[in-house]
Amino acid sequence: MKSITSRENPVFKELKLLATSSQARRKAARTLLDGVHLCQVYLDQVGLPTLCVVGEDSLAQQEVLAIVERCEAARVQCLVFPQPMYQMLSQVEHGVGLLFVVDTPRAEMPGRLSRSAVLLDNLQDPGNLGSILRSAAAAGIEYIFCSKGTAFAWSPKVLRAGMGAHFSLHIFENVDLQKLIDTAAIPVLATSSHAEHRIYDVDLSGSVAWLFGHEGQGVAEELLAAASRRVSIPHLGPVESLNVAASAAVCFFEQVRQKTAH
Amino acid sequence: MKSITSRENPVFKELKLLATSSQARRKAARTLLDGVHLCQVYLDQVGLPTLCVVGEDSLAQQEVLAIVERCEAARVQCLVFPQPMYQMLSQVEHGVGLLFVVDTPRAEMPGRLSRSAVLLDNLQDPGNLGSILRSAAAAGIEYIFCSKGTAFAWSPKVLRAGMGAHFSLHIFENVDLQKLIDTAAIPVLATSSHAEHRIYDVDLSGSVAWLFGHEGQGVAEELLAAASRRVSIPHLGPVESLNVAASAAVCFFEQVRQKTAH
Repeated sequence: MKSITSRENPVFKELKLLATSSQARRKAARTLLDGVHLCQVYLDQVGLPTLCVVGEDSLAQQEVLAIVERCEAARVQCLVFPQPMYQMLSQVEHGVGLLFVVDTPRAEMPGRLSRSAVLLDNLQDPGNLGSILRSAAAAGIEYIFCSKGTAFAWSPKVLRAGMGAHFSLHIFENVDLQKLIDTAAIPVLATSSHAEHRIYDVDLSGSVAWLFGHEGQGVAEELLAAASRRVSIPHLGPVESLNVAASAAVCFFEQVRQKTAH
Repeated sequence: MKSITSRENPVFKELKLLATSSQARRKAARTLLDGVHLCQVYLDQVGLPTLCVVGEDSLAQQEVLAIVERCEAARVQCLVFPQPMYQMLSQVEHGVGLLFVVDTPRAEMPGRLSRSAVLLDNLQDPGNLGSILRSAAAAGIEYIFCSKGTAFAWSPKVLRAGMGAHFSLHIFENVDLQKLIDTAAIPVLATSSHAEHRIYDVDLSGSVAWLFGHEGQGVAEELLAAASRRVSIPHLGPVESLNVAASAAVCFFEQVRQKTAH
């Protein structure tokens, strides 16, 4: 374990950039995993990080030490920072002080949409994006396609909300959704409160792609027009719409219900 | 319309306290509605605010002016603040500068749990709470009972995430959930990944109460033990759990599906 105490240290400066700038993360094709849970899932499901970073105050914690030892045994460099410096890298205020630096995967775009997927058009909120990734992974949906304007999937906030879902998904960013929909081999479904068909009345037992949009404005008109079908989640109360992540969960698990029905 | 430009003005000071302190909001039994959408829903569904507050920069906007005129016609006081002062009251960074001060309703606790409801044990995140309230209202569930440790339902963040759902719900806070469950006249269902029954196989066509807990730790053991039944949302993927708000939406709308099934 190596201790770094100077804020002028080039590694610290690079980490700070990764922690604060989506642009830097995209450019470096690296991101930060914040907290014991994410690091643990990464070790178990993906492999070794590029770097392991610890806040001084957390060195006494057994679960942190266990991970540091596992990294050092595999010759992954581990750095310790004084707590005030560590806090500049972490977005978790009172969390356990452990971070991994990992490479973001470069997935190869499939030629055509042919397996169950989620298409996100201009979705803004990192918490919503993380929750949708988590729900998709739990529902067995593996492919995620994000339009150019959608929040960056590998930001620490989205990773935290995703709780490890990222590592079992194929996530594609800056995707031309119009082209994807136009050439899709499976139905593309968009939810809309004015749709004719309720999700409960649509056959979801095969592969489908779900299309969700911006929190305020919904899916862009031209994409909606290109979708195979608009479907509705029927409401019983006076509130007109659901949060987009709640709506996605309802759709994904109606698909699970139909797939697992006897 | 009255313009206030001094930060020492007592009304401004009181508003700042309401904007920043849950304790102050509880004590005053008042809260702030932030943004055009919430204020509009309040006017349409509840009535007049105690006070209408506008940021100078938003006075030119037609939708804001329309609401201000509606308030003034009904003799509700309207205050205008210079933009920097207004920003100290609002949590929306680039939103439209309109706030209502409203009284939080004091609902009378029902004697016994006898209609569909949501019970929240120590739920922490304001975004999750708002999303759950919004989903419940959309699913026609009207009663919400929050334990002492649960986030304050009438904070600006929860109100924003609720998108107006608050106004069609009966929300009770600091509730003794144990007592409520022990005396319930309807089944109390808690989700658990180890449960024997899938939500799809449980009869939800009548009234039920849904019990959800802390984002990390779940529902307290003694409450889980008191629940009538533990039910599971079956997963098809490798991710072990859903975000609590996503999980709640899936449960509420499985109830809607069963209620509206032919």
